[in-house]
Amino acid sequence: MVENTSQEEKIIIIGSGPSGLTAAIYAARAGLSPLLIEGFQSGGQPGGQLMTTTEVENFPGFENGIMGPELIERIKAQAQRFQTRFVSEDIEKVDFTSKPFSLFSGSKTWKTHCLIIATGASANILDHPAVKKYWGKGISACATCDGALPVFRNKPICVIGGGDSAIEEAQFLSRFASRIYLIHRRDKFRASKAMQDKLLSNSKIEAVFDSVIEDISGSNFVEIVKVKNVNTGQITEIQAKGIFMAIGHTPNTAFLNNSLELDEKKYIRVKHPTTATSVDGVFACGDVTDPRYRQAISAAGSGCCAALDAEKWLSEKGIE
Amino acid sequence: MVENTSQEEKIIIIGSGPSGLTAAIYAARAGLSPLLIEGFQSGGQPGGQLMTTTEVENFPGFENGIMGPELIERIKAQAQRFQTRFVSEDIEKVDFTSKPFSLFSGSKTWKTHCLIIATGASANILDHPAVKKYWGKGISACATCDGALPVFRNKPICVIGGGDSAIEEAQFLSRFASRIYLIHRRDKFRASKAMQDKLLSNSKIEAVFDSVIEDISGSNFVEIVKVKNVNTGQITEIQAKGIFMAIGHTPNTAFLNNSLELDEKKYIRVKHPTTATSVDGVFACGDVTDPRYRQAISAAGSGCCAALDAEKWLSEKGIE
Repeated sequence: MVENTSQEEKIIIIGSGPSGLTAAIYAARAGLSPLLIEGFQSGGQPGGQLMTTTEVENFPGFENGIMGPELIERIKAQAQRFQTRFVSEDIEKVDFTSKPFSLFSGSKTWKTHCLIIATGASANILDHPAVKKYWGKGISACATCDGALPVFRNKPICVIGGGDSAIEEAQFLSRFASRIYLIHRRDKFRASKAMQDKLLSNSKIEAVFDSVIEDISGSNFVEIVKVKNVNTGQITEIQAKGIFMAIGHTPNTAFLNNSLELDEKKYIRVKHPTTATSVDGVFACGDVTDPRYRQAISAAGSGCCAALDAEKWLSEKGIE
Repeated sequence: MVENTSQEEKIIIIGSGPSGLTAAIYAARAGLSPLLIEGFQSGGQPGGQLMTTTEVENFPGFENGIMGPELIERIKAQAQRFQTRFVSEDIEKVDFTSKPFSLFSGSKTWKTHCLIIATGASANILDHPAVKKYWGKGISACATCDGALPVFRNKPICVIGGGDSAIEEAQFLSRFASRIYLIHRRDKFRASKAMQDKLLSNSKIEAVFDSVIEDISGSNFVEIVKVKNVNTGQITEIQAKGIFMAIGHTPNTAFLNNSLELDEKKYIRVKHPTTATSVDGVFACGDVTDPRYRQAISAAGSGCCAALDAEKWLSEKGIE
């Protein structure tokens, strides 16, 4: 049986990463009493991708770095301080065809006049138990975030992938690492010719074709990566302190079931520079709209913008 | 005599508010060794508008709030930790007609391959000694930032201005304040009809036409606002705990002398969602590009994006 929550909400925010939480801080301080639905889209817990990272060095204001989960905890406390209400449910379905909008989890329904979607994106990762085991212990999905960490400096590392972004990340990481093994399961890269030429001219990067990760070992941190050639079955051991996944991201938009306009990669299309979507009264922010930057601070910034857009929209509609 | 700095820089960032400093953190962590030129565009000191605010409640990560100058100090320390180099000079002129670009202060010249402009905007404030005296002590230029502060709750306040944004801010502030005096020097508002109708229906807001601030008094914080009728010369005393300036902002773009494309209000036009300007290799971020949101966190977010755009641009050009 589906429970209908009796209240019509003024504003609901879906998502509990930096973007959704920042939207909550702004909406709450504007006196809108937002309801934030924190789901489990990313990594099986609320809080988004920062919950599965360790030290964050690049969120401005924390000059000595801060652990990802602690940062989320602090932003959440801030949203709570201004009376954001939280519920833990995964939204599985929406109905934007009538107003107020309806949101459905498996067991509950909500109605809201205005909606902010901040459900994020998930880094695609290899489905291998060793990858889960060493996640955050040498394995990362963000070269920008983690490439410069001391633990990878002047050390050999692996990058997994074969597209433009894999080669970009390998190039980027070659500034810090001593050697880079770019491991790709096919016999050539999908990346553009220009990109591949760059790769060839970079003596630090070695392409390892037709290969997949067989196993990872190390006492507490990645030390040895076992790579299997998919044609010959031969196993090679690579000494590496890190593994960077560069096999893409998937925006968490499946639950929307095409109720609003997505781009060709299924990210929500917004009317830049605003956070308005194709549905009047629905706003979106953070990684679910952003295939390009995907940083905690850029997500937080756009969360602020979404709340200000929503506040203005509600005020214009006279919904107080 | 003009001193030419001998080095050709890879990347220079102009501006030292949240946006410029966040760009520096990202550029520095990407190994680009940025030079940040911190000017005095905003309030006669580096650091941007946060240097003239008191408590910041809405920057995510600081659940109990943080003083504006302390937040800037921390972000600066973070940029320095990753080897950003700082110089204190006001850039007065640029030359983008040949590459590398040239930047000129009164006494020095720099050359750089890539440039990030983060010079911010300045809130227009009344030129009156009492306004300077009580700035941050009851006087604010940001309703979004400060409207919800306990000091203004259920207290009478003044809003200065007569345009759409002044009326928007008065409406917004009426959620918190007990009474709002909207003081305008002319005999009618410039705001749209719809806006004015809204105003009339809000019983908390009283329009005070043909009036200017004559003086402000209070022991340490704004307490009494003396208002003069410009036609009759009559002085009225208003008991008010706060004064919100809503007479617009001026982006700090005069030094660019139309070297790149500005919008009709003189903000730098960027190719959203990127931070690219009309000049290849010049990026812009923060309030100097943003007439809409103007928040520390949105500025910081776009600073991150500018650094990532610049990093990619340098890499594509092979400038390492």
